[in-house]
Amino acid sequence: MNSKFSRRKFLAAAAASCVTPAVAHPLPNAADLLALLAPTRNASEASGAAWRNAGIADFSKSPFARLKPVPVSAVTIEDGFWSKRRATNVQSSIPSMHVQLIAHGRMNNFLRLAGKSSAPQQGPVYSDSDIYKWLEGAAFALQSGQQPELRATADSMIRDVVAVQEPGGYLNTYYVEDRKPLRMQYPTQTTGHELYCIGHLLQGAIAYYRATGDKTLLDAGIRFVDNFLIPNYGPGANQMGIVSGHPEIEMALIELYRTTGKRQYVDLAGYILHGDERIPLRSSQVSYMFCGIPFPSRTKLEGHAVRAMYACCGATDYYLETGDPAYWKTLNTLWDDLASHQLYVTGGVGARQEGEAFGDPYELPNARAYGESCAAIGNMMWNWRMLAASGDAKFADVMERALLNGINSGMSLDGTTYCYRNPLAFDPSGDSRYSEDPEGKIRNPWYDTTCCPPNLERTFAELPGYFYSTAADGVYVHLYDNSRISWRLEDGTALRIEQKTNYPWDGEVDISVSPEQARDFTVYVRIPGWSLKNTAMVNGTPVSGIEPGKYLAIRRRWSSGDSIALRFDMAVQLLKANPAVAEDRGRVAFQRGPIVFCMEMLDQPDAVQQSGFSNCRAEVAASSESRFVPDLLDGVMVLEHSGTVAPSSASNSLYFTAGESRPLEETRTTLKLIPYYAWANRSRSAMQVWIPYTRV
Amino acid sequence: MNSKFSRRKFLAAAAASCVTPAVAHPLPNAADLLALLAPTRNASEASGAAWRNAGIADFSKSPFARLKPVPVSAVTIEDGFWSKRRATNVQSSIPSMHVQLIAHGRMNNFLRLAGKSSAPQQGPVYSDSDIYKWLEGAAFALQSGQQPELRATADSMIRDVVAVQEPGGYLNTYYVEDRKPLRMQYPTQTTGHELYCIGHLLQGAIAYYRATGDKTLLDAGIRFVDNFLIPNYGPGANQMGIVSGHPEIEMALIELYRTTGKRQYVDLAGYILHGDERIPLRSSQVSYMFCGIPFPSRTKLEGHAVRAMYACCGATDYYLETGDPAYWKTLNTLWDDLASHQLYVTGGVGARQEGEAFGDPYELPNARAYGESCAAIGNMMWNWRMLAASGDAKFADVMERALLNGINSGMSLDGTTYCYRNPLAFDPSGDSRYSEDPEGKIRNPWYDTTCCPPNLERTFAELPGYFYSTAADGVYVHLYDNSRISWRLEDGTALRIEQKTNYPWDGEVDISVSPEQARDFTVYVRIPGWSLKNTAMVNGTPVSGIEPGKYLAIRRRWSSGDSIALRFDMAVQLLKANPAVAEDRGRVAFQRGPIVFCMEMLDQPDAVQQSGFSNCRAEVAASSESRFVPDLLDGVMVLEHSGTVAPSSASNSLYFTAGESRPLEETRTTLKLIPYYAWANRSRSAMQVWIPYTRV
Repeated sequence: MNSKFSRRKFLAAAAASCVTPAVAHPLPNAADLLALLAPTRNASEASGAAWRNAGIADFSKSPFARLKPVPVSAVTIEDGFWSKRRATNVQSSIPSMHVQLIAHGRMNNFLRLAGKSSAPQQGPVYSDSDIYKWLEGAAFALQSGQQPELRATADSMIRDVVAVQEPGGYLNTYYVEDRKPLRMQYPTQTTGHELYCIGHLLQGAIAYYRATGDKTLLDAGIRFVDNFLIPNYGPGANQMGIVSGHPEIEMALIELYRTTGKRQYVDLAGYILHGDERIPLRSSQVSYMFCGIPFPSRTKLEGHAVRAMYACCGATDYYLETGDPAYWKTLNTLWDDLASHQLYVTGGVGARQEGEAFGDPYELPNARAYGESCAAIGNMMWNWRMLAASGDAKFADVMERALLNGINSGMSLDGTTYCYRNPLAFDPSGDSRYSEDPEGKIRNPWYDTTCCPPNLERTFAELPGYFYSTAADGVYVHLYDNSRISWRLEDGTALRIEQKTNYPWDGEVDISVSPEQARDFTVYVRIPGWSLKNTAMVNGTPVSGIEPGKYLAIRRRWSSGDSIALRFDMAVQLLKANPAVAEDRGRVAFQRGPIVFCMEMLDQPDAVQQSGFSNCRAEVAASSESRFVPDLLDGVMVLEHSGTVAPSSASNSLYFTAGESRPLEETRTTLKLIPYYAWANRSRSAMQVWIPYTRV
Repeated sequence: MNSKFSRRKFLAAAAASCVTPAVAHPLPNAADLLALLAPTRNASEASGAAWRNAGIADFSKSPFARLKPVPVSAVTIEDGFWSKRRATNVQSSIPSMHVQLIAHGRMNNFLRLAGKSSAPQQGPVYSDSDIYKWLEGAAFALQSGQQPELRATADSMIRDVVAVQEPGGYLNTYYVEDRKPLRMQYPTQTTGHELYCIGHLLQGAIAYYRATGDKTLLDAGIRFVDNFLIPNYGPGANQMGIVSGHPEIEMALIELYRTTGKRQYVDLAGYILHGDERIPLRSSQVSYMFCGIPFPSRTKLEGHAVRAMYACCGATDYYLETGDPAYWKTLNTLWDDLASHQLYVTGGVGARQEGEAFGDPYELPNARAYGESCAAIGNMMWNWRMLAASGDAKFADVMERALLNGINSGMSLDGTTYCYRNPLAFDPSGDSRYSEDPEGKIRNPWYDTTCCPPNLERTFAELPGYFYSTAADGVYVHLYDNSRISWRLEDGTALRIEQKTNYPWDGEVDISVSPEQARDFTVYVRIPGWSLKNTAMVNGTPVSGIEPGKYLAIRRRWSSGDSIALRFDMAVQLLKANPAVAEDRGRVAFQRGPIVFCMEMLDQPDAVQQSGFSNCRAEVAASSESRFVPDLLDGVMVLEHSGTVAPSSASNSLYFTAGESRPLEETRTTLKLIPYYAWANRSRSAMQVWIPYTRV
């Protein structure tokens, strides 16, 4: 092991740091200095009236965040692409998931311990996190506007949760009674999800505090950390140490620092990110859990995809507060691995069902793709943090790809069923070996491991917070949809921005920029990486220097009502994958703007339905027709593209001589594609994103 | 669970059967009756002078074996395809593996317990089996001819092994001292390989007995079973029961019955094949270990490929002795799953590194193919038993495919290095995540889990025993090579058969059939499934009724010197895979006769070497040139085939628009192929079996 990352050395130093809040950071010297120079938050300010004005993650005082978030409440998403989805989320998804959580005993687990129920414990070890994640979704929904009934429900649940916290701070409904001796023991720490649950409690509590000012749940989370976790298992404690098992606590602790101003939470997160060598881990565990060794010693993405993504989120949060260059270097190495080897075209990640894991480089199977909804969300959360650290639009491109495709696919259009897996091909007649697909169904109202549904809900609820950032010299526009923001520049100047667009169906985005008084600043508008030909005008005058995949920095003196007109390239693109992606060889994927398309069999001509996907090919040189169909799938763009279809080969043999399979007569046909996110919302049907092509 | 397979009922019945050797079998009535009708072996005969005349597995008195094996010693393989390989095996592989085993402490583990060494235990839990498998290989080598030095070495090792057997019969060098309390406990039984080791001891001991008449090791194995296993863990014992964990003991026990005539070994094997519900197993264990539930309740191949194959061997052996129709039905269901969904074109099996396991149906990746040598050997062993049960040539086709390709690839041409994995594509610049490939090398002289090397050695040593069988009405010829057999028909008539051929390079096989006196009987010659056009003549007269993939039954009065002339179709075939095999779409594999070919990059023209395999295509309509090159790779047929090559696309992107990747100019080139089994015998080079094709 590199001596720079000596765990023992770190341990002693981190222990010291927990008693003296002015941190002497044991990592490389540059980082030490940076950490010492970092502004210390004023605890009273953080806990005061400012609660309302924090973003999804509050980088506002993070010294290494170039971009600062805007509050969810500052942004209003208006009638357009996201509006129905977000309304459905609040009106249907969040309430119906509440019913499911109650029905499956997830709240009862708390009531039971308070003596209010005699039903037994239900659900897996991580069941408490279902409640916390649901509360976080509700909290973000409340940040977008008052909903008294939702508020009352959440308040009541929070009361029932905190009622069972033990005097020593411990709070978990699984490790009680007979299981009490297992708490935080090895190997319980690696599998028990105790800190994962508390991480979600903290995230939910912070979101709720930022929505309502109510600190009831937040105080419970602080009691867990301050009274139970740090004294017994923190770096200075005479115990076995911490391994997060399923990373999540790391980012939660740093958000707790951002909320309370107490620096020891950053130090504790750093200690966990570093790993504690007193905990005996096998290398397979270190790979699978993506924790337990110094984060900066990582060189590739591997293991459980959600764990890896959440670990990267926590590590980026740690970088944003400390500026540790070893972390930044590693994060970029891992991101390059993601973008070069591990990212589905839908923005999903995690190729393998076994271990819900990353595969080898370029191992991106389609029908077998795992692409867990939570992993795509983790991917977006990580890229959001990388974007904050760097201002580099490549991170926003990945965010948008994941959000509009591999995350968006995770919830049905009616908001009541969810994908756990998000495969890129589906054969309804195929063998379904996935325990996550009950009865082979890809969308289900409930999973016993129900991480994805509330995760999707919180993501749609917090969506406004991803649209804009501020920076020292101006404001960033990351995402496009009909929307308006009412916020301020970092110098305090009030600012309104309004978008009028039919994005992502059209490439025209008209933006009005209205500072309260004329000011020199920069508006950074994102030029998506997929948009190869672009124009931009300010008040009708063309702007030069536009580059795909970069922010266009428009620096000028802005006055109320100034306009930016963006025109993106919505030509249908046929994408190929690197030839090393075995399953995509000889195939193309269709993308139009940020939307990735797929074929569902039920939309195809009879000849294709009879011969099957394997006998039909898209003509790679043909162009596609795009047509918006308002009454299909809540309104989607539909693509039509020329193709060929050959008679089905009758053979079911595993191997046969080439002569036997040569198609006799290919006939012309028209292939029909819908957005990938909208698949599996009608009757059960085969689906494919990657389509065999012919050059004819 | 089907009540027919009730474990509890079986348990009681099997317990009863162990005390009364005249078995009342608790399985379905037909089987009960058949078992009662089955001839009981005469123990004194089996243990008498007949030891020399048993085959690889001795089905000679198995009531449900249609084909009876011939002794290894009855067949001499002469100068031809296999002769150098077999000579290398005896002269180089077996001796060098002995050196490796000594160097890695595998014999020392025994000497240590005898007080002859103070070095610590070395190697994984299954290390004893390395010794036993090596002894089995040596034993089969001794069956083909006396080798005093090898015999002396083996004798000495056997003495050292049996010296550490405990008075109670237990024999294992790992579960001693501190680990003694773990013996046969749960979960040790599922992972400890105690019975796996004893299974290999028994197989080695039986082969050694059949080579030499020496029963030293055999008696030790019998003591383990009779004195330790059955009394403590057998069906009637008041203990927790048996799960084999890694199947192997099942076929060993049945071979022990065939060797000793003691029926309780068949019953014990049946009890283990049935599973004992007292042992708590998770469904994932039941899948992975391929044991622990009633074998006839299996519906598909899954889990660890070697375990599944060995379990199928044991189950087929059980069927051969009992005729249980539920077993036969299940075995055929599993075989159909193999042939339709799980078989590599090389005869290898086991797609996944994770769990060394079968994948989903049609999940047959190439570079990631696991294809463990032991699994291909297990596949051949299973098909050999299915062939014995049925006389159906489809089983011999799979045997030959595995033997000449996916097994044959497992040992280097010089006999000193071995493949653990046998992938169908290889990129030397690629990431090597396989712990079985030290330093990313595909052939290694040693693996800490060294199951494959001695398994390959025993397979090549026992090879003569696979060439022929007898049946009630005549003799079967399964495999072709220059060889002669001196044996007898089942009526006792002495018979010599001689083959003159250059098979598998040529399709001409000339066979002389010489009974000691003229007799009416049938010679069944195998027409390989791949041979689409065939002729056969007897004494110059054409024979009709030839069908590929069937035995041609030539029934007549045979006299000394009668001749059969077979002419098989050696046209090069371009194979395609079922479109459901994602990695093989748009690709062809080349086969000529039984030999599967591959491209090694070092043989290719400069243009291909520069552009890489992904930019070059075989012209599917072109024909191949075949040329035997005697000084290449110990003499191989080389194929040349027309193809195209396009300039390498510079992009390393994961995705790019189709326009970017369209090849500018394809040029004509000639692709060169060598037999797959001979790959990786020169310098490190990329390899592919499945080659992209173009119809141009």
